[in-house]
Amino acid sequence: MSQFRSSFAAFLCLSFAFCSFQSLAKTVSATSPDGSLKVEVNDQGNSAHYRVMKGNEEVVANSQLGLVFAKLPEFVDGFKIKTHKTSNANSVWQQPWGERKQVVDHHNELLVTFSFQGEKSAVNRSKHEFSVRFRVFNDGIGFRYELPKLGDVDQVTIVDEQTEFRLNPESTSWWIPARGWNRYEFIYKKTPIKELDRVETPFTARLPSGTHISIHEAALVDYAAFSLDQRRDGVLKTDLYPWYDGTKVHAKLPMKSSWRTIQIGNKAVDLVNSSLILNLNEPNQLGDVSWVKPGKYIGIWWAMHLAEKTWGSGEKHGATTDETKRYIDFAARYGFDGVLVEGWNIGWDGDWFFNGDLFSFTQNYPDFDIKELAKYAKSKGVKLIGHHETSGAVTNYRNQMQDALDLYQKLGVEQIKTGYVADGGRIKRVDDKGIVRHEWHHGQFMVNEYLYNIKEAAKRKISINTHEPIKDTGLRRTYPNWISREGARGQEFNAWGSPPNPPEHTVVLTYTRMLSGPMDFTPGIFDVAPKGLYEWNRVNTTVAKQLALYVVLYSPIQMAADLPRNYSKDLAAFQFIQDVPTDWEESIALDGEVGEYVVFARKERDGSDWYVGAITDVQGRKIELNTDFLDEGATYEAQIYQDGKDAHWKHNPYPVDVKRIKVNKNDKMMLHLAAGGGTAIRFKKL
Amino acid sequence: MSQFRSSFAAFLCLSFAFCSFQSLAKTVSATSPDGSLKVEVNDQGNSAHYRVMKGNEEVVANSQLGLVFAKLPEFVDGFKIKTHKTSNANSVWQQPWGERKQVVDHHNELLVTFSFQGEKSAVNRSKHEFSVRFRVFNDGIGFRYELPKLGDVDQVTIVDEQTEFRLNPESTSWWIPARGWNRYEFIYKKTPIKELDRVETPFTARLPSGTHISIHEAALVDYAAFSLDQRRDGVLKTDLYPWYDGTKVHAKLPMKSSWRTIQIGNKAVDLVNSSLILNLNEPNQLGDVSWVKPGKYIGIWWAMHLAEKTWGSGEKHGATTDETKRYIDFAARYGFDGVLVEGWNIGWDGDWFFNGDLFSFTQNYPDFDIKELAKYAKSKGVKLIGHHETSGAVTNYRNQMQDALDLYQKLGVEQIKTGYVADGGRIKRVDDKGIVRHEWHHGQFMVNEYLYNIKEAAKRKISINTHEPIKDTGLRRTYPNWISREGARGQEFNAWGSPPNPPEHTVVLTYTRMLSGPMDFTPGIFDVAPKGLYEWNRVNTTVAKQLALYVVLYSPIQMAADLPRNYSKDLAAFQFIQDVPTDWEESIALDGEVGEYVVFARKERDGSDWYVGAITDVQGRKIELNTDFLDEGATYEAQIYQDGKDAHWKHNPYPVDVKRIKVNKNDKMMLHLAAGGGTAIRFKKL
Repeated sequence: MSQFRSSFAAFLCLSFAFCSFQSLAKTVSATSPDGSLKVEVNDQGNSAHYRVMKGNEEVVANSQLGLVFAKLPEFVDGFKIKTHKTSNANSVWQQPWGERKQVVDHHNELLVTFSFQGEKSAVNRSKHEFSVRFRVFNDGIGFRYELPKLGDVDQVTIVDEQTEFRLNPESTSWWIPARGWNRYEFIYKKTPIKELDRVETPFTARLPSGTHISIHEAALVDYAAFSLDQRRDGVLKTDLYPWYDGTKVHAKLPMKSSWRTIQIGNKAVDLVNSSLILNLNEPNQLGDVSWVKPGKYIGIWWAMHLAEKTWGSGEKHGATTDETKRYIDFAARYGFDGVLVEGWNIGWDGDWFFNGDLFSFTQNYPDFDIKELAKYAKSKGVKLIGHHETSGAVTNYRNQMQDALDLYQKLGVEQIKTGYVADGGRIKRVDDKGIVRHEWHHGQFMVNEYLYNIKEAAKRKISINTHEPIKDTGLRRTYPNWISREGARGQEFNAWGSPPNPPEHTVVLTYTRMLSGPMDFTPGIFDVAPKGLYEWNRVNTTVAKQLALYVVLYSPIQMAADLPRNYSKDLAAFQFIQDVPTDWEESIALDGEVGEYVVFARKERDGSDWYVGAITDVQGRKIELNTDFLDEGATYEAQIYQDGKDAHWKHNPYPVDVKRIKVNKNDKMMLHLAAGGGTAIRFKKL
Repeated sequence: MSQFRSSFAAFLCLSFAFCSFQSLAKTVSATSPDGSLKVEVNDQGNSAHYRVMKGNEEVVANSQLGLVFAKLPEFVDGFKIKTHKTSNANSVWQQPWGERKQVVDHHNELLVTFSFQGEKSAVNRSKHEFSVRFRVFNDGIGFRYELPKLGDVDQVTIVDEQTEFRLNPESTSWWIPARGWNRYEFIYKKTPIKELDRVETPFTARLPSGTHISIHEAALVDYAAFSLDQRRDGVLKTDLYPWYDGTKVHAKLPMKSSWRTIQIGNKAVDLVNSSLILNLNEPNQLGDVSWVKPGKYIGIWWAMHLAEKTWGSGEKHGATTDETKRYIDFAARYGFDGVLVEGWNIGWDGDWFFNGDLFSFTQNYPDFDIKELAKYAKSKGVKLIGHHETSGAVTNYRNQMQDALDLYQKLGVEQIKTGYVADGGRIKRVDDKGIVRHEWHHGQFMVNEYLYNIKEAAKRKISINTHEPIKDTGLRRTYPNWISREGARGQEFNAWGSPPNPPEHTVVLTYTRMLSGPMDFTPGIFDVAPKGLYEWNRVNTTVAKQLALYVVLYSPIQMAADLPRNYSKDLAAFQFIQDVPTDWEESIALDGEVGEYVVFARKERDGSDWYVGAITDVQGRKIELNTDFLDEGATYEAQIYQDGKDAHWKHNPYPVDVKRIKVNKNDKMMLHLAAGGGTAIRFKKL
């Protein structure tokens, strides 16, 4: 038995708050600059707790805080508030590239220090204390743990974190499972919170009140990523990903954790418009990053997923000198900045999926003349984009990383796509004793390994696009050369996934995965039902929706993923992909609901044109677009790419109507989205 | 991306087996005594693997074996078969109590030793070897790891076990989630294997061929329990429950793991009739156990779940001297052996659910005169049944255990129900440094703690009925005083669970939880829709089905769980509960399908009567009962308790028809089970 006792417990817990503790417990609090949000921190039951209010609504009920160590006693029971400090900040900072140039960081801060004041213990606990730093913004809160040197203890092993998020279990939530072998690459599920088990973040939920929240983390450095583990109905607990030996975090003191974040909004799009994650990251540490260049690219990639070409050598080898030149020519002709080539290096033949140690990161296949191609690309004003697939064998990559990056730098390659697929979902490394260990992509070891790669690349003015990455926690602010990443089910699942991505997938991503940062989703498939695939594999979309994705799914680098021959067949629609920028002055999610639809307006960086992208789930929609985001007094030619008559994601995906009309900021337009469709608009300033 | 590469991988893996390895790999095998099952053990890819065949059917595809340590290299890659030994056994042993008196242990054994023969390593690996001992029975297989002393290494910390069970992902499976806060107390789900995440054992599946299997473990001693974690479609991996610090098992060498078991049958009932788990346990270590007494009991228990009474003191206190005497009188009048009393000891007032340290195991509440009641019970020929609720604070219990057991022994208490509920699903202990640690119920620490309690009780000739237990792995053979346990959603969930147990719950338990051993489910509720509960809370059953449960859900101790006043209202049906024994000469699951229905025949131990119990899910059924299990030449009066006309679990649960007919072994009877109903029969030998 147990369920009963736990409801019983919940009841006690209340009476608790009122009778036993209220009198004894100390509570300190901080509010958001606009007064709409409030965090209360208390030591009820001689233990650290916090609570989040939005006006009179309890968004997060009184929830546990604390850390558990391997050798030290737990920092959970026996702790009371010792001191608290408040401060505030209101500043504006600039992104070298991003969804907006100016970012406002306006918050109030509350630093609470808890010290052990519990019963005498066999261990001397007089020096045992920890702090929790809270920042309260108008669009949510963040908090992190900070540990000082504990007497003569100057390093700790954290084996568990007790952070809870007590939410209404009846809330609707959108999530992917945690601890799965396939990392973040799952189809999102929609269930009441009470029905989930372990889930990854960003974790998005709509409370019964209609308030929307998203739980995630920011500035994940030298710590373990957490998933959320439901311990009782609605009680989500941070579950840190372990090292191979089960420990979670090894830290020198003083130390700080990553920020735990709770974005809070009245509407779904409020979450999308929030810059909270970036604001909780450290400023740019790389200095001048003008060498980090947003842009668009094509690549020898989709052909492999369609099994027209192979990564490995042989007759169907994709990465040949001739084939690459054809792609370079196409890129030059249509204004693409780069050409990605996968399968160029030795190691793809045989069982690379099981044995990443086969990969060389410097030796090209004989039919891929990398020097010649670098020269050819340069002559055409196009950049080769590098590729480093590790297959999860990170020690093999680490051993070659310097040479591999030097080679690309010498060849003028400014951007590399890295890959960390791994059989059974575990990274293989060799420790300093020469012992093979298997680690999670999400654990402290890999968190540091990914960042090491970013820093080494930065020394050579190279940007990194990480696939099978650690989730994004906003580190692009601190390391702007971490230009994009994967971290969700991308386009390739449509080629071979069973099932492929459902029509609503990208509308769910907008309110979940995309809250963490840019994604290299690789949109732009025009032939949505290629031949030779399993009967159920196709891209569940209209072509117009594929265009809209360039505006909706933010990434400073965007691929035109389809085969050149398919673009040549529909140059009218392809024009939008040529026109759409990938770097923005401002971005506004205007309207939408999680998993149903979204309408984005973005203004090009240092330019005058605006772009709109709207996408929907399986339901066709008429959406009124109020163009009041346009510049005052200006007139625009709206170049509209919309689903043609009777378009439908399944039955009639291809028709795209392109029309041009004049509009200004006082106009209203009606967007017609087909089932599973979308609309893309360029507002060209006249 | 990944899904693709893994299908790709699967393909490689095949070609692998044929081209690369087959030539190099060594394979040894063993078959079951009847030749129907075969285990092949090989070192494909220089790594330990096994495969299970049933005739030409591959039940378990070639699956990984191996162990991962904290300091030593992994015992996974680089291992080849060094030696193998075969042997066989065919014996019969007796259970002091049980579902059958005689148990046949007939198996062939294969002991395979793997030694490291991989590449040179920074570490000296010349002494690195391990053995896997396989036993192949006609009804399934078991295997365990055995580690010798490794050179001068005489203790190890295991941090992961690589044991895989590669099953057809399309197989239908019945499971409860693992790593949940509520231990084993969940409603079973039915899904294809490919849809599950982490599941507990016994894990039951029906392969597309119709073959039924159940994965579990046997003889879990000084090791961690495992759950099954799906790493890729159909690839289930043992996931050992960790210590608080994430390590899994701390072992002195030489050591052996618990047995991993795979029961295999043509029909669902073949799994139920298997004695494989018991056969893999060590013989009785307690000597004469005539003091372990199966029997039936009532108790002051359901009244608390109905909130008529309270565990804590006060006006509604259940455990009063007067109330207990009323129960003793009722027990004496109707032939029950014992009376359980919960809430008799100090510690139930206030927040016991959060703080088990409040419990005294020797001090009774003033209104419960334990000495007087022990005397009164004795005068009536009834035994008091003790109760030790720890609320998961095991150190507090350990500190009082000697005194607590001594007290009960002095009072003539021969059986104790223990409880280990724990807030948030973790056990609280204080380690030898005085540091508080939280442990899983399923980890090595608690596996040992539960057994310590059993051994201490045995010294005083006391039997233990563990609630919120570690799962049963057949240790009742070795320690016959471990008389029963919980370990699944029991009757009490019907009083307050949301939702309560569904009508099919007990039919699912029969083929899942019950495969591990006796369960103290506490059947026998006659008032199936008590007043004062939440509208959705009721017992989803007919009364006839409640009677049948005494035969279907095996336990040597069975409670008549309802309030005495409810039995007094229906003495006709109550007669069956008075008559049915709890100890058996033989038990046969005659017919059934997982989660749908089951028909059991059991013969009373050292007696001449047979009993039949049949239960069904929401579907009403006519089932032909062939009585050929009855003794040759004997005539019986079949006392049949069946669902009355128009009986229905929801609309009309109460009518029970009792009729008597004469039958012998050549007869056939037609059983009529109502929707959600059942039939109970006593075959009284004339």
